[in-house]
Amino acid sequence: MRQQPSTEYRGFRTAGIRMTEELMDGLEFHRTEELYDTLEAIHQFDKAHVVMLTEQGLIPRDDGAAILREIRAMESSGAEEARMDAQGGKHSGEQHLIRRLGEDVGGRINLARSSGDLGQVGRHFTIRDHVVKVAVAVCAFRETLIDLAERHSDVVMPGYTFLQHAQPTTLGHWFSMWASVMERTSGRLAEMYGRVNVSPAGAAILSGSDFEVDRSRVAEFLGFDRPAANTMDAVFSHDVSLEACTTIATAWNDLARLADDLELWFSAEFAFIDVPDRYCGTSSIMPQKRNPSLPQNVKAVAAKAIGNVTTGFASERGPTGQAMFERYETQRILWETMGALPELLHDVSLMLKDLTADRQRLLDAAGRHWGTATDLAGALVRKTGISWRSAHQVTAIVVRLGHERGITPREVRADLVDEAASEYFGRKAGLTDEEIATALDPAAFVARRTLCGGPAAEPHQRTLDELRTTLRRDKTTTDEWVTTRRDRQDLLETAIDRILA
Amino acid sequence: MRQQPSTEYRGFRTAGIRMTEELMDGLEFHRTEELYDTLEAIHQFDKAHVVMLTEQGLIPRDDGAAILREIRAMESSGAEEARMDAQGGKHSGEQHLIRRLGEDVGGRINLARSSGDLGQVGRHFTIRDHVVKVAVAVCAFRETLIDLAERHSDVVMPGYTFLQHAQPTTLGHWFSMWASVMERTSGRLAEMYGRVNVSPAGAAILSGSDFEVDRSRVAEFLGFDRPAANTMDAVFSHDVSLEACTTIATAWNDLARLADDLELWFSAEFAFIDVPDRYCGTSSIMPQKRNPSLPQNVKAVAAKAIGNVTTGFASERGPTGQAMFERYETQRILWETMGALPELLHDVSLMLKDLTADRQRLLDAAGRHWGTATDLAGALVRKTGISWRSAHQVTAIVVRLGHERGITPREVRADLVDEAASEYFGRKAGLTDEEIATALDPAAFVARRTLCGGPAAEPHQRTLDELRTTLRRDKTTTDEWVTTRRDRQDLLETAIDRILA
Amino acid sequence: MRQQPSTEYRGFRTAGIRMTEELMDGLEFHRTEELYDTLEAIHQFDKAHVVMLTEQGLIPRDDGAAILREIRAMESSGAEEARMDAQGGKHSGEQHLIRRLGEDVGGRINLARSSGDLGQVGRHFTIRDHVVKVAVAVCAFRETLIDLAERHSDVVMPGYTFLQHAQPTTLGHWFSMWASVMERTSGRLAEMYGRVNVSPAGAAILSGSDFEVDRSRVAEFLGFDRPAANTMDAVFSHDVSLEACTTIATAWNDLARLADDLELWFSAEFAFIDVPDRYCGTSSIMPQKRNPSLPQNVKAVAAKAIGNVTTGFASERGPTGQAMFERYETQRILWETMGALPELLHDVSLMLKDLTADRQRLLDAAGRHWGTATDLAGALVRKTGISWRSAHQVTAIVVRLGHERGITPREVRADLVDEAASEYFGRKAGLTDEEIATALDPAAFVARRTLCGGPAAEPHQRTLDELRTTLRRDKTTTDEWVTTRRDRQDLLETAIDRILA
Amino acid sequence: MRQQPSTEYRGFRTAGIRMTEELMDGLEFHRTEELYDTLEAIHQFDKAHVVMLTEQGLIPRDDGAAILREIRAMESSGAEEARMDAQGGKHSGEQHLIRRLGEDVGGRINLARSSGDLGQVGRHFTIRDHVVKVAVAVCAFRETLIDLAERHSDVVMPGYTFLQHAQPTTLGHWFSMWASVMERTSGRLAEMYGRVNVSPAGAAILSGSDFEVDRSRVAEFLGFDRPAANTMDAVFSHDVSLEACTTIATAWNDLARLADDLELWFSAEFAFIDVPDRYCGTSSIMPQKRNPSLPQNVKAVAAKAIGNVTTGFASERGPTGQAMFERYETQRILWETMGALPELLHDVSLMLKDLTADRQRLLDAAGRHWGTATDLAGALVRKTGISWRSAHQVTAIVVRLGHERGITPREVRADLVDEAASEYFGRKAGLTDEEIATALDPAAFVARRTLCGGPAAEPHQRTLDELRTTLRRDKTTTDEWVTTRRDRQDLLETAIDRILA
Repeated sequence: MRQQPSTEYRGFRTAGIRMTEELMDGLEFHRTEELYDTLEAIHQFDKAHVVMLTEQGLIPRDDGAAILREIRAMESSGAEEARMDAQGGKHSGEQHLIRRLGEDVGGRINLARSSGDLGQVGRHFTIRDHVVKVAVAVCAFRETLIDLAERHSDVVMPGYTFLQHAQPTTLGHWFSMWASVMERTSGRLAEMYGRVNVSPAGAAILSGSDFEVDRSRVAEFLGFDRPAANTMDAVFSHDVSLEACTTIATAWNDLARLADDLELWFSAEFAFIDVPDRYCGTSSIMPQKRNPSLPQNVKAVAAKAIGNVTTGFASERGPTGQAMFERYETQRILWETMGALPELLHDVSLMLKDLTADRQRLLDAAGRHWGTATDLAGALVRKTGISWRSAHQVTAIVVRLGHERGITPREVRADLVDEAASEYFGRKAGLTDEEIATALDPAAFVARRTLCGGPAAEPHQRTLDELRTTLRRDKTTTDEWVTTRRDRQDLLETAIDRILA
Repeated sequence: MRQQPSTEYRGFRTAGIRMTEELMDGLEFHRTEELYDTLEAIHQFDKAHVVMLTEQGLIPRDDGAAILREIRAMESSGAEEARMDAQGGKHSGEQHLIRRLGEDVGGRINLARSSGDLGQVGRHFTIRDHVVKVAVAVCAFRETLIDLAERHSDVVMPGYTFLQHAQPTTLGHWFSMWASVMERTSGRLAEMYGRVNVSPAGAAILSGSDFEVDRSRVAEFLGFDRPAANTMDAVFSHDVSLEACTTIATAWNDLARLADDLELWFSAEFAFIDVPDRYCGTSSIMPQKRNPSLPQNVKAVAAKAIGNVTTGFASERGPTGQAMFERYETQRILWETMGALPELLHDVSLMLKDLTADRQRLLDAAGRHWGTATDLAGALVRKTGISWRSAHQVTAIVVRLGHERGITPREVRADLVDEAASEYFGRKAGLTDEEIATALDPAAFVARRTLCGGPAAEPHQRTLDELRTTLRRDKTTTDEWVTTRRDRQDLLETAIDRILA
Repeated sequence: MRQQPSTEYRGFRTAGIRMTEELMDGLEFHRTEELYDTLEAIHQFDKAHVVMLTEQGLIPRDDGAAILREIRAMESSGAEEARMDAQGGKHSGEQHLIRRLGEDVGGRINLARSSGDLGQVGRHFTIRDHVVKVAVAVCAFRETLIDLAERHSDVVMPGYTFLQHAQPTTLGHWFSMWASVMERTSGRLAEMYGRVNVSPAGAAILSGSDFEVDRSRVAEFLGFDRPAANTMDAVFSHDVSLEACTTIATAWNDLARLADDLELWFSAEFAFIDVPDRYCGTSSIMPQKRNPSLPQNVKAVAAKAIGNVTTGFASERGPTGQAMFERYETQRILWETMGALPELLHDVSLMLKDLTADRQRLLDAAGRHWGTATDLAGALVRKTGISWRSAHQVTAIVVRLGHERGITPREVRADLVDEAASEYFGRKAGLTDEEIATALDPAAFVARRTLCGGPAAEPHQRTLDELRTTLRRDKTTTDEWVTTRRDRQDLLETAIDRILA
Repeated sequence: MRQQPSTEYRGFRTAGIRMTEELMDGLEFHRTEELYDTLEAIHQFDKAHVVMLTEQGLIPRDDGAAILREIRAMESSGAEEARMDAQGGKHSGEQHLIRRLGEDVGGRINLARSSGDLGQVGRHFTIRDHVVKVAVAVCAFRETLIDLAERHSDVVMPGYTFLQHAQPTTLGHWFSMWASVMERTSGRLAEMYGRVNVSPAGAAILSGSDFEVDRSRVAEFLGFDRPAANTMDAVFSHDVSLEACTTIATAWNDLARLADDLELWFSAEFAFIDVPDRYCGTSSIMPQKRNPSLPQNVKAVAAKAIGNVTTGFASERGPTGQAMFERYETQRILWETMGALPELLHDVSLMLKDLTADRQRLLDAAGRHWGTATDLAGALVRKTGISWRSAHQVTAIVVRLGHERGITPREVRADLVDEAASEYFGRKAGLTDEEIATALDPAAFVARRTLCGGPAAEPHQRTLDELRTTLRRDKTTTDEWVTTRRDRQDLLETAIDRILA
């Protein structure tokens, strides 16, 4: 926690100017290290701002050129290192420039700009850049999920509620579910992009400057869609920070739920799936151990992302403008968890592709625990015309008798169903052994699920087609983001070239 | 917590059918009271499902008609009461119908339907209905904010960071900031509407039914945009629940931040604003007390909504299908906090409209604490051509000397500025007394903020125009939602009429 | 949310006294319903305060007697109903008394007392009373756990990490673990009792009264240990509220973890345990369903309690005295989750007592998945003197070869171990078939765990003896709490009798 | 996130032993860097374990001596560096030793020990060490608070509720409140110490070893009170982790509330207090800025600590043994926030000592806003014998008339009170001007608060005496912890000396 103040030029923080003494040790919060992921944003904003000031004639063209030349030099030898060396955090650019060019020239960079809009540009620009990366990774993950959903469309498996056997479905249907979940994640990211990709630059600390700045120009250079429509809102956009925290935490929570499925299926008792050894750790004391490590890593980051939502709500508070330093807490773990998402999505993708499902075991499990009983009731309705509820009751009696007598679903014959029907409403059901066997067969059960959104081959394929269509659309969107960001960076570099020419 | 099991027909929960004994006291979770806000959804789903089954020929037309006739009778005498009387929670419809029509007829209602899709339709339909109401209320609130932003466009006031005086702005600018915040809230609600207004109906518990249900028809009746594309995803859409919790909590947090501003401004020390007595409580022991109560109420609900996000993440967990009952916890406080939002937005609207700002005190406050010093530095840049940083340093010395010598901003004259300039770089600044006074005048300071998004009259008006344009667009959207919902309800009633005819 | 103001006497809230108009509809926060669990505290405080005022001569003895007589009358016809009827929330006592006795007499009750200390006494008294009930229930639960730990001391079962087989242990060891966890819960409750059972009464709103109140006397009547040492701290004890929230949430989280174990073991794939039908629900669509419902209910309340911690941190904020209404949010779910804990502990107790473990299946599972491999490595160390790491590596090779060749732990013979040893360090291991079999036998594995705290019979029994000793000590403590509370209530009633005499 | 696997000896993680391939890049979670604050615990545990194994004859004395000699060498050149170099995380000791001494000797260190008890010793030992430091710092902070409470015992100031003037008190009373709050924090830390200072060592992963380890000896060496009574509980003590998170977060929340008071009082509008410039930052754009930075830093760490509670609840989940990696997330921010607490308590101490209160302004504020009106009502009760409620109502009318007519509290005369009394109950009050002035005087108001716990000189001093007594007791406790820890370390070093001799 303890921080060493830098020893050289300290600009507006110099003792004897506004303040009569230096900040006490430990209160020096302006370390470049603490910019974390926003360093790039701060650097690009420095460039864009100087270009705009020069173009607007707010700083002499020669001074603008000198500054930009020095920034280019800084870049060629490593901007990050130069900024770490200069210290000053968000003002590391100014500190570096003044050391090199003197206050007369270097001191011009912050005209009409405050720590406030440096901080806010850092926030919006960096969230935006992370959103783009996450969105690209989510699209890639969706592609994997859709492919695997297709590949496993005929792998019948049990479904569960309360961790008890519910209805059979397919592993393909499960993959397709996750593709749908991730499609919604893409949607949230796209919408958040729209709200976060708005430029706070020029807002100063809340009411802007009286110099004739061109906020649109800076917004353009930095890849933003437009300048924020209210300079006060530009600085105090707490809700946008919170949206980033909650959207990312929700995405992590989804991935953690998927990890929970995998961990369960990897257990010796379920033993539904397996992966190559490279995904597994072992133990220093238990030579038998072969732990699938990745799901735990996913859940660890998820817990962090979820906690960060609470941190966000604890920091993004009123009154307006009071919470300044504390708001930076919302970011630190946000950067970590946004940064980790593309990596872990990639790793999970690899593992899912390398996963082998034990088809026979899954099929057996789907049939063994009466998971298909619903369709025996359905068969009763069709055959006898009795109400669903009555048919359900009769079937429930069949299951109970089955358990009491050690009869498995495969062994159910017409007499048992007739006995149950007689018990419930005094007459036989009349189903044949074959009708019963068909009703209770898990593969047939799935094949009958031809309803819209169901696991049978035809609706499954239709859903996958839809998922692919939407994926193509969403990829176009993320491609455009990537292109825009690159084009705008080019625009900025070209503008610099022009001034330097 | 303790619940009394209902004593009559208990359908599939009857001891001696599947189970050999009754659920122990305290585990009976199927009380109609616990449907909370979802009762309406369950009721409409009962109707839509029966119509669809009848139309599809899955239940005899006469039975369908009998059921629908009984439901209409139920409605005319009060559906809620009938359901409370029948008990059975999500299955209160079936329980009521079987009591009236017997199991042969009433027992047909749940063909191809499970508690799972009842629960999920309850979730999606009710979130959707709340979203519509909240969205309508947010639009109305935005209208109020924009109107007040216009009305207070010339009320100069201080801005703050760290609770210390920063730059002056206007009260209109502050109102406009909140209009921008709430515009983003409208955006999030609209996008959430798109994800939540998808029908889970027909998904049964995860893989649907083998009866030929028409999921699109039911979706249409219930006002949903379409059926969910994967029946497993339809039931386990945890992320949609979480999105509702986080979006609503963020909206509450925004309103709580606004409440923090109001509480501060109401304090005797700030005394910036006042409201009529009807918004104030007093004390049983302190006769002087006049507490503005509403902001505290806002913050109380906000704290609840924020805590519900954590509850949401603690309930919406994997593995798939394990968390069933616990997921209902995500809803309970969601209904409360979604339900309270339109009310409190309305109350806060009233208070804001009735609020009187102490214009003179605000203007004085904006000038008295050197909040305009930035523009003295700016004037130095313009007059002398020195760099921003040097001008800033000189001005900082002016402020320090002012504090040391008890000179207020109004009393600053050319000699003080010259003294500071001499101290910093050895020559006078050359600003005249008038230039200094103009630079430091808070009203002039604001008038110079003509930049895009700034508080000066012209950009302020432009921002308000934009805010009004977007508001009109968003109102059109919410109007359509309201209309669609009504049209679909009509469609359902007409379909019932046709069957009953 | 909307509240109807009561129509009669409104005391200090009457329009025309301090305020010129009535509070607007919707801001009337003084409903008796909103006292929730604190109603009893408020009622007893009313009594204790009047007795103290009378004893101190601060109200005329006749008036004191008249008030106490009316309170007794109120009690005989139902204090709760009378207070609901009178409305006024915390001031329902005063409102009732003034309606019955007029302001001249009834208006004396709040001398030297404020809403602030009513609220705080409500908080501390009610948390205290809940703590007592929870602590009693936790002791009873510990007793059950210890008994079951003894009863299941020889039920060998697998242990897990990463949901993969780790080392065998016993079901008794598992029960004993939970007894240890709950022992710590008892500790936390006892310590919280010490901090919460301190009387805020007499603090007024923060600096008390200038009337000669006897705070110790009121504290005594209400069962508190002593008056709070600082009247400001008495009112603003945010940390005590938070401690209640976090301690209760942690207890719920422990119970939820236990529930997670049960849900897993109930699954068809694990099938380690079973319970009678009365603990199970079924399904409206899946006739096979037999869902153990209780664990889900536990986890639902746990999620609520966990969310309430976040609500607590969002409400219990500074600056001192600003958060007044919002602090009540910390309580509402606290009462629910404190109230539900004794009930659910009782229900889970019943289920644990009725649970049957499948001993053979558990034993098989403990041996089948190489969970005992650690002891084969140990045997190698003992026999050959090689280092632990080398022995572990050799055993790891044995396991790998076993998997590759389809050899189960029971089938491992000396040649396989020798092969692995040779592979790793070039010579045979020399273990006999019998040594290998003994090392890998799960029951023998457990029997060898005689270390302190281990699952073997002897240390297990020693741990249970210690757990019982501590339990007796803790029961003495809770017994004393119950006795003190009753004695102090008697003291209060006797003091009332004396005044009425 | 990406981690580079170490390239040398990889022990049990070597491909070709248990696993056929290396862990994939990115899944290598065994970096020494990730030990964070637990490195010291792991190091001491390595030493204690080897001594115990040697003493028990479980490893040859010569090998034990060789290992301990190498560990001493490691220490003399820097244990942390050596471990970073060896990599292997918790197993960095073994990796280092094997590289130096070969597997035959170095490979003996982990006999009867697992990653599980390494992790858990790391957890308990490190929490314990942090608790000691935090507890010492809290005691020092309490001393400062008590001293300042004494020094400011006569500084009359206003109290607030709803941010509106409530009753006057003193700044000393405020300081004393915080001393009481922090006294409770000390209590919680002491109790947590009792639960966390229990040794998990020897538990292996859940059922311990069959080698004759002496758990008490290791516990003694590491400064623990005793070995955990159940080896399974020793490893899965989730509640202890959560208690650390919640206790620390509550302490931070208290400090954040204090920071909120300071920020408010530093505002230009309140202007109650000031501090030297060394506690203040300024701005890059606003030359007037003088922001008290420290409170914001406190609130930032508090937000992080609060979020970590949610992370804790999201990680410390069931089923038993499933959450392994994710539990480490509970620690990371715990170490940060435990580590920062002593530092920030120290910094805040300094600032509080250097703080100057504006006595006159505080006194004026206490009187100007009718904060003493309660005592005018009290005076009416005493003089006229009317009920408190009636007196309160009359006074409320006085205040209202005062506001309506622009009469300040100082200007209230008998006629105004009589007018109000006449309005309320038809006769004059009869208070003299002097009685009124005395009642409304803020200093006299405070001087009359002689009740137990009140702000008047006498009870205030009594409270401070009590606070000092408790502080002495608590300091004795923390002194003992520090001494025990040092003695046990000496014991360990002596035991090593003996083996090396």
